[in-house]
Amino acid sequence: MTLIGGIEAGGTKFVCAVGTGPQDIHDSVRFATTTPAETIAQAIAFFRWQKQPVAAIGIGSFGPVDLTLNSPTFGYVTSTPKPGWANVNLLGQIQQAIPVPIAFDTDVNAAAYGEYRWGAAQGLDNFLYLTIGTGIGGGGMVNGDLIHGLVHPEMGHLLIPHDLEADPYPGHCPFHGDCLEGLASGPAMKARWGQSAETLPEDHPAWELEATYIAYGLVNLIASFSPQRIILGGGVMSQPRIFDLVRRRVQAFLNGYVQHPAILQGIDRYIVPPALGNWAGVLGAMALAQTGIGGG
Amino acid sequence: MTLIGGIEAGGTKFVCAVGTGPQDIHDSVRFATTTPAETIAQAIAFFRWQKQPVAAIGIGSFGPVDLTLNSPTFGYVTSTPKPGWANVNLLGQIQQAIPVPIAFDTDVNAAAYGEYRWGAAQGLDNFLYLTIGTGIGGGGMVNGDLIHGLVHPEMGHLLIPHDLEADPYPGHCPFHGDCLEGLASGPAMKARWGQSAETLPEDHPAWELEATYIAYGLVNLIASFSPQRIILGGGVMSQPRIFDLVRRRVQAFLNGYVQHPAILQGIDRYIVPPALGNWAGVLGAMALAQTGIGGG
Repeated sequence: MTLIGGIEAGGTKFVCAVGTGPQDIHDSVRFATTTPAETIAQAIAFFRWQKQPVAAIGIGSFGPVDLTLNSPTFGYVTSTPKPGWANVNLLGQIQQAIPVPIAFDTDVNAAAYGEYRWGAAQGLDNFLYLTIGTGIGGGGMVNGDLIHGLVHPEMGHLLIPHDLEADPYPGHCPFHGDCLEGLASGPAMKARWGQSAETLPEDHPAWELEATYIAYGLVNLIASFSPQRIILGGGVMSQPRIFDLVRRRVQAFLNGYVQHPAILQGIDRYIVPPALGNWAGVLGAMALAQTGIGGG
Repeated sequence: MTLIGGIEAGGTKFVCAVGTGPQDIHDSVRFATTTPAETIAQAIAFFRWQKQPVAAIGIGSFGPVDLTLNSPTFGYVTSTPKPGWANVNLLGQIQQAIPVPIAFDTDVNAAAYGEYRWGAAQGLDNFLYLTIGTGIGGGGMVNGDLIHGLVHPEMGHLLIPHDLEADPYPGHCPFHGDCLEGLASGPAMKARWGQSAETLPEDHPAWELEATYIAYGLVNLIASFSPQRIILGGGVMSQPRIFDLVRRRVQAFLNGYVQHPAILQGIDRYIVPPALGNWAGVLGAMALAQTGIGGG
């Protein structure tokens, strides 16, 4: 069986894996994202130490990244505010060390593709995958193709209603203040409530407010894409109560305008967690490599 | 030369045309959208009276419409609040009277396709077309395919920031109050300022506020789709000053986050009027018929 490698290159951690699919992971490793030199070296070392070489690698990277195939900076992490990581040739450094075909896309498109291949988006041609954690990002498919465009989507930076009387927290996005990511990412929750999302109890009002902001974002994505399903991953979504709070608000905010049973009656199957859990990213990167559809 | 028919079935007016393309319109007619029976009869009569029969027809319809090919209500106008038009079999009635192949899509997807074929979106695979007039709607392409999804996009119903101190007008959308359409459509402008958009002078503060709301919407669509270009049509956009007001605000609100020359330096060519003007819809309907890609 041909072994494939996957790299989920996240802004907080890297996940590398070797195998053929979710039921057949031969080896995997997780490590913190530190400097580019150290982090990329760890990823390269993981694949070099494997007994059997991989036939191809897929990378799903945090961004912004350059996905334009004929661009001189194709495969770079570009204008990220993450210290040290702006203008880093992520793909090129790995490609030089491991001379196999390498597919490259955003971390969220990779996770979306993993869910399409093996998870909650099987059989769907129009769906979105969002991660809500340290940052907020989104990817997905329209008519069976991953969404790229001019650069790539930045779904965390939607501008949404913000009632400053109910929530005076100004938002923490360095570019937009109170965009979706500025109001609803993990660091925003921590800054607003003085404790991290994981430590906020289930009945804390933080979750009602969090669900409101996420639902504003989802309503906007539904109005934009009319997706058949929305998958929500990331650390913030591991709160067991949050999915139902989000679903009810999406229905309330849409207010019957989109008259489709998937939303009116089937919302529990419309807004769902990733079936692959926190393996979606690295498995999706492997799936990208297998089908050779990454990049551009 | 094979003649093609086009129908722009708008909520305010219908436009029907016969020809082969923008340089070769043999006949056309515009009439108000009244009752379904009267309006559809006028469209049918227009095509029946032509000396040379059309080989195919394209319809771009106001909505919501049912675009699911195997649905029993495929080709219907569905849950529109427009009196008399809910659950009207628009495609079926025309199909029964004129037995030629008929392509069917939203009015905004038709206009987008017209601009793709003959206008401001030639050569682009990822772009959006919005109309801002009596209502606000949007369509376009991702990876060279028209956007459909679960139902179809409803880009007028984006939820955007609304500073009630600066603008106490509550919005007029019967479903969402102060969504984009509720705040920025022609009727919203008229209700807020007491005079219709066409009569508001160029230096009226109405245009600054209008540009702010449109720019919020466009920033959200850029964050969602990363389009290569956005085309803005509709009556409100016929104000000569509005395009520049919108462009500057889109740049200001994005605040350098999307680092691409198309937005940083080329915004005048990034946010543009339709090259086909108010013919985009009916020409796009003809183009849909010619390439047989309508529906589903």
